[in-house]
Amino acid sequence: MPLDPAAETVITAFHAGPPAVQGLVRDLRLRWAFEEIGRPYRAETFDAFAPRSAEYLQRQPFNQVPAFDDGHQPLFETGAILLYLGEQDERLLPRDPGGRWQAITWAFAALSSVEPAVSPLVVTNMIHRDKPWADPAREAFLQHTHRVLGHLSEALAGKDWIAGTFSIADILLATVLRPLDRTPGLLDGYPVVAAYKARAEGRPAFHRALADHLAAFQQHETAGEPA
Amino acid sequence: MPLDPAAETVITAFHAGPPAVQGLVRDLRLRWAFEEIGRPYRAETFDAFAPRSAEYLQRQPFNQVPAFDDGHQPLFETGAILLYLGEQDERLLPRDPGGRWQAITWAFAALSSVEPAVSPLVVTNMIHRDKPWADPAREAFLQHTHRVLGHLSEALAGKDWIAGTFSIADILLATVLRPLDRTPGLLDGYPVVAAYKARAEGRPAFHRALADHLAAFQQHETAGEPA
Repeated sequence: MPLDPAAETVITAFHAGPPAVQGLVRDLRLRWAFEEIGRPYRAETFDAFAPRSAEYLQRQPFNQVPAFDDGHQPLFETGAILLYLGEQDERLLPRDPGGRWQAITWAFAALSSVEPAVSPLVVTNMIHRDKPWADPAREAFLQHTHRVLGHLSEALAGKDWIAGTFSIADILLATVLRPLDRTPGLLDGYPVVAAYKARAEGRPAFHRALADHLAAFQQHETAGEPA
Repeated sequence: MPLDPAAETVITAFHAGPPAVQGLVRDLRLRWAFEEIGRPYRAETFDAFAPRSAEYLQRQPFNQVPAFDDGHQPLFETGAILLYLGEQDERLLPRDPGGRWQAITWAFAALSSVEPAVSPLVVTNMIHRDKPWADPAREAFLQHTHRVLGHLSEALAGKDWIAGTFSIADILLATVLRPLDRTPGLLDGYPVVAAYKARAEGRPAFHRALADHLAAFQQHETAGEPA
């Protein structure tokens, strides 16, 4: 059972915040990796709206979650943390140089080529949806989203996983794609991408990670403090 | 002289394209790294507007530049390529684990925490500036830019380089900040960030890299084909 209150490895996550972000906050990426390799961890959770202490900025300089510490190496970016975990476990990152670099270049691609084609839509939909400019801006941003999804479809053709075998690149790429669910029908034109995302989300480790991610919010609500 | 027509290491870059991107295209990040370590490379350049061959997508799946190949490992994301170069040269990435991971986590932070606070402004200014929604959208995006620049100021306080010694994290962070020049006055409120950016851009290796990046455009114009 990776979620273990006595584990030395700790991450930070939310237990309350905007309902729209439940299921999308980036601690999910780390929980998924821990589940894939059965590595025990514990989660320190807090309210997304609550001010953080000044000390928290030492752990996460942008005041976000997750921060990570395993007692040896504090880290604060999911890309870096997944690379760190991958270097310790070949189920997350191949050992052979060709496979390793293929996974690393796709891990960066998920964050630097795909996420920038998704985030402007998400930000417009979640934060600015009531602004008068939201509709035309969203339409303009969608052109880039479609261009990137088209390229991604070609890159995924004939593959189960983006870098050959399952790796940290898939954890990043699949979670980067998840917010597109909030734009109904968008992935209909990209059946290869939709099937890839469903394949990733169908992994038992992903199910367990998502359940624990959501449970943090539910347990907090049940405890009587509204999320 | 790192730029060497006989070098085995090759990158792709542009020699023509929208004037606004000259000085900002990401091949600059790699040229800078090569200059820091005196590693010979050659640049295959082409027109940003010209259609690429289907084969080019094998080298760069999103049809962008730079792609990289040293005869051993083809790669296509600047973050991954800089990490690859850094693992071969400690002037780009410290060897001790603590220093190495500090640089890696900040390399990811430049791309995943800082660049997303810069890019929506850049995209709005460069691509959508004539749209009626550009001004209010820019104002809204600026809130996030200011939040991130504030956190970055605190993280940079008292440091010459973001991860202690100069590293790939600085190449990424400084180049991510460069487009903010196009929003006059923006960095005036963040003197620590402005001084950091100037310090990075003051390195002789950066000067040589930028000169070669710009020369590709100038030589092509001089050759009679308008950029």
